[in-house]
Amino acid sequence: MAYQEFKLQVLTREKGCFVEITAEVNRILRERRWTKGLLNLLATHTTCGLTLNEHADPAVVKDLLGRLEEMIPTSRGADQHAEGNSAAHLKASFFGASLTLPVSNNSLELGTWAGVFVTEFDGPRTRTILLSFLH
Amino acid sequence: MAYQEFKLQVLTREKGCFVEITAEVNRILRERRWTKGLLNLLATHTTCGLTLNEHADPAVVKDLLGRLEEMIPTSRGADQHAEGNSAAHLKASFFGASLTLPVSNNSLELGTWAGVFVTEFDGPRTRTILLSFLH
Amino acid sequence: MAYQEFKLQVLTREKGCFVEITAEVNRILRERRWTKGLLNLLATHTTCGLTLNEHADPAVVKDLLGRLEEMIPTSRGADQHAEGNSAAHLKASFFGASLTLPVSNNSLELGTWAGVFVTEFDGPRTRTILLSFLH
Repeated sequence: MAYQEFKLQVLTREKGCFVEITAEVNRILRERRWTKGLLNLLATHTTCGLTLNEHADPAVVKDLLGRLEEMIPTSRGADQHAEGNSAAHLKASFFGASLTLPVSNNSLELGTWAGVFVTEFDGPRTRTILLSFLH
Repeated sequence: MAYQEFKLQVLTREKGCFVEITAEVNRILRERRWTKGLLNLLATHTTCGLTLNEHADPAVVKDLLGRLEEMIPTSRGADQHAEGNSAAHLKASFFGASLTLPVSNNSLELGTWAGVFVTEFDGPRTRTILLSFLH
Repeated sequence: MAYQEFKLQVLTREKGCFVEITAEVNRILRERRWTKGLLNLLATHTTCGLTLNEHADPAVVKDLLGRLEEMIPTSRGADQHAEGNSAAHLKASFFGASLTLPVSNNSLELGTWAGVFVTEFDGPRTRTILLSFLH
């Protein structure tokens, strides 16, 4: 058994955006020779998350962000949290801050259309994604 | 340490449906002698997910599908993704494509009322669930 | 490789509430000398979940519970599940019953503002959280 960690910094450029990190994660797997095992990704924050979704057509992410704002509007009169970002906290929890994925042949085993995204709901910021590999 | 994988094919018969796979996953655990450890399940797709929920009363899944369609309607004028299935992408991300579960005595350690479901939002299709076992 | 388990009982005092368990999980990690590896947490139920979110300002959880009730109201005429708690089942699945987190130095590696919460949607109850540690 071996357990190793690596911190990835991700820059998000807008208030609400999805930033794909698939290629960067695969590069880290190759560089660190993390060949086969389970990779845990943790966004060490409470207003962004991690998700798998389509990375072929950017319109998918655009539609998702539009639908999310309609379902969970940024502004809500009854909110009491002084920072005014409770919507971002809820969106983050719906997507989840943590993701565990299978790795084989030095690479994430995703489907053809799937990519790993940092889901930013309170940017722009520099976000830390902790990668932990157990094999 | 051992890391092993197995691909499970699941047929979904409707556009929106939950297909329970608990018994099939437990059968695979027994056949492959995956006795004790962590099992990762990954739906290698972007319009279906995986979830734990009640498997005793089928009305629960029916209520969930009805509520989901009201919250995240299939049709939305502003959507730009040409395939017209952005709602399915959002539902899939809310449930998540990946699930990690404890295994002991050759069996998933779920609660009495819980089952593992593939949550289909853009079927009918044949879906691949990648099972990865670390022990 | 070692795989070990521990059951944590959590009392939830209201119908809808978030109960933070970060300190208790860290105490278990220290007592059992689970130093470094991956910790899986599973709520063995179908009307509560687990999530990471802000633990500094209690107003965040209050805002989340208020927004959730507006999005997924407890009562819905079309629901068929006789127990009348389909809303709780949906909320639980959105948050997810399972969480896998990295452990280093006998402690969960969360961000400064993040805590682990049991998300109760059909309390008050005593909930079982199964902790499984792989290292």
